[in-house]
Amino acid sequence: MNRSDFIYMLLTSAAGWGTGIGRWRINSFNQPSINGKRVNRHLKELSEFGKNPEGGVTRSAYSEADIKARTYVRSLMEKAGLEVSTDAAGNIIGRRAGGKTNVPVLMTGSHIDSVPEGGNYDGPVGVMGAIEAAQTLKENGRILRHPLEVIVFANEEGGKTGSRALFDDLTEKDLDLKTHIGITNHEGIKRIGGAPENLDQAVRKKGDIAAFVELHVEQGGVLESEGKTIGVVEGIVGIKRWIVTIEGFANHAGTTPMDDRRDALLGGARFVELVNKVITGEPGRQVGTVGQIDAAPGAPNVIPGEVTLSLEIRDLSMNKIDRLFDEIRSKAKETIGREKELDFSFNHIYTTQSALTDNRIKEFVATSAEELNLSQMSMPSGAGHDAQSIAHIAPIGMIFIPSVGGISHSPKEYSRPEDITAGANVLLHTLLKMDQI
Amino acid sequence: MNRSDFIYMLLTSAAGWGTGIGRWRINSFNQPSINGKRVNRHLKELSEFGKNPEGGVTRSAYSEADIKARTYVRSLMEKAGLEVSTDAAGNIIGRRAGGKTNVPVLMTGSHIDSVPEGGNYDGPVGVMGAIEAAQTLKENGRILRHPLEVIVFANEEGGKTGSRALFDDLTEKDLDLKTHIGITNHEGIKRIGGAPENLDQAVRKKGDIAAFVELHVEQGGVLESEGKTIGVVEGIVGIKRWIVTIEGFANHAGTTPMDDRRDALLGGARFVELVNKVITGEPGRQVGTVGQIDAAPGAPNVIPGEVTLSLEIRDLSMNKIDRLFDEIRSKAKETIGREKELDFSFNHIYTTQSALTDNRIKEFVATSAEELNLSQMSMPSGAGHDAQSIAHIAPIGMIFIPSVGGISHSPKEYSRPEDITAGANVLLHTLLKMDQI
Repeated sequence: MNRSDFIYMLLTSAAGWGTGIGRWRINSFNQPSINGKRVNRHLKELSEFGKNPEGGVTRSAYSEADIKARTYVRSLMEKAGLEVSTDAAGNIIGRRAGGKTNVPVLMTGSHIDSVPEGGNYDGPVGVMGAIEAAQTLKENGRILRHPLEVIVFANEEGGKTGSRALFDDLTEKDLDLKTHIGITNHEGIKRIGGAPENLDQAVRKKGDIAAFVELHVEQGGVLESEGKTIGVVEGIVGIKRWIVTIEGFANHAGTTPMDDRRDALLGGARFVELVNKVITGEPGRQVGTVGQIDAAPGAPNVIPGEVTLSLEIRDLSMNKIDRLFDEIRSKAKETIGREKELDFSFNHIYTTQSALTDNRIKEFVATSAEELNLSQMSMPSGAGHDAQSIAHIAPIGMIFIPSVGGISHSPKEYSRPEDITAGANVLLHTLLKMDQI
Repeated sequence: MNRSDFIYMLLTSAAGWGTGIGRWRINSFNQPSINGKRVNRHLKELSEFGKNPEGGVTRSAYSEADIKARTYVRSLMEKAGLEVSTDAAGNIIGRRAGGKTNVPVLMTGSHIDSVPEGGNYDGPVGVMGAIEAAQTLKENGRILRHPLEVIVFANEEGGKTGSRALFDDLTEKDLDLKTHIGITNHEGIKRIGGAPENLDQAVRKKGDIAAFVELHVEQGGVLESEGKTIGVVEGIVGIKRWIVTIEGFANHAGTTPMDDRRDALLGGARFVELVNKVITGEPGRQVGTVGQIDAAPGAPNVIPGEVTLSLEIRDLSMNKIDRLFDEIRSKAKETIGREKELDFSFNHIYTTQSALTDNRIKEFVATSAEELNLSQMSMPSGAGHDAQSIAHIAPIGMIFIPSVGGISHSPKEYSRPEDITAGANVLLHTLLKMDQI
């Protein structure tokens, strides 16, 4: 038993799911390899669509650049032997039949739209990795048991519109929402070949998808700083956001002695420090951020009477988010508020539920990395992804590769070609293992 | 010797200026009293010009309301027996001849322009108090040794334009400056009857003014909270302002662990706390204020990469301001900056020199309050005043009366009629004492 098989056995035994050891051992020596040069060339070609002078792309959903990029991606899918269609939400689907009938599909993919002034890796790596896996299967004559669908989700950056359609989450309000390029989702979906009036046709029921896996760049610097190539994603963190208002009393900065001030910005400063203290005050990977702040009336010679700021907390556990928030709120009111006669109020404005990845898929990713002699670590995803949508209807998994410098949503976003190759290979191996379920 | 004379003797002896004790003792029993009902009625009448629904006034310099109010004030001056003129800077001057020739003038006054959405007391109390003092002198047939000038300074709230003209401080840039009502000072001065091309005619040389005294509302809450009616002003604080920039690194709030953040807003929060700690860390009446803050890029899901904020320090001692600033700057760089890899930079943008009041005039104010059985305390002025301009060319004094709730620059600004009466009486007594110099 070589080391990778030994690890695999440990993992599957721990999960009480060890019946396939014999089969896996054979697979681990039989896996095909993706073509690293090709997948990196495809990424480079894709980066021409919406290219900006800084070296990244502005490829907002539904834009001309997005539409041209979609045409290019469809051509790659066809070359990879996939039968290409567009669903009612505008998602591109490349399908490959499986060896068995009446079994649910295996699905993999990501998105190719970008934020304005974005980079070339957030999304595209997962799409090109998925197409590369399909092409490799074709070239190796490997027929999976399950049908395989490679999916390009529409408008991820503008609210995961495409992936949310799969679990019937889109409302009229979502369709009427103006996107970055100034048109509504309704118009945009039509423009890319979808049918916004028939969105029910895009919906997948529980059981339709056997499992979903998404390869993605980390968008943070943890893999890099830990010196690991593959991130085995434990789940996508949940997010809660609040607007916090601190009311004091605006007054003349010259005539009001320090002791008599009800300075809302001094309260705001203490609040920012409190958030940092509470969030870092216990073990775990929770994060808490104050990203926006405004002090009114906002003049150098007036003591601020009101401060508003944003508070965001993310963690894999929604309970932990709530517990941390409760601690922040009560300490803010009881210590900062009481000391300086400041009123704190908290307005909850946003929630995204966390989505845990499936234990078996995590094991497949870990084992695949092990087989490929790639360093790895478990980690949460701090950013949202299409996989989060699919978690509502199917088991999901995610594979991360490093983002150099942890930079994302920027033309400076960069992932090394060798890491992209490694990620695509782990994706392929993982799909082959998922096929055994 | 009654108590007030005893106190007076102590004061004058302490100042080494006791030659007039006999004379003062006689005066202290002979002083006329101002008409409290009348001065409060005049204030009420003045508040009609530029009146707003909230109970205050918007009477910006050079506006229709300002011009009408000036006409009203001139009529009161004339009734008070003053010879009224307008100088080249648009200051209204009501002059009363003195008993001696070839002696410099005693001057008193303030302003009647207001901030937008201002109140009825900041400025008008000093103007109406001065006119009332002149009218009382007339009614009592009292001829002073010095000529008396009651002055209404133009455009105090927009940069002390009128009073600065007296010490030749106005530049072409000041004249070209757009005021609150959208016209330049040049146009505004013309509109109120001044001659902006002949500003040298408004200039007073050192020696032209024997002394200047200004009655004003405190604009803070110290007199009220200390239960005192008269503030003997020690001087007008100096002001320095800086723009502080804190540079960290903007990053994804979900994917960047707490330990890896260079959060400029956490640095900003610690800076605000540091300012408060340094300013309150030693005895004295210095104040330090952060009134403006901006965090960029300013999204709830992005760690702020750059924070800019304003810093203002005020004190009677410019050296103390500089020393406090140096302490803040070095601690910011060495502790906050070093800990989180944040770069602090400080851009000095504004200075107003402090102006100390004349020791003899302080004594006259204190003795007058004592004679009138009014409670009193010494205090700095945290706000700027026209007296500050006159300090460049003559000895100055200021008399404060309480602002209820410490509120100013607001329609809620309020001073009790009895305090206004008290202040006007102290002003009259002080002028009589100044006349003996």
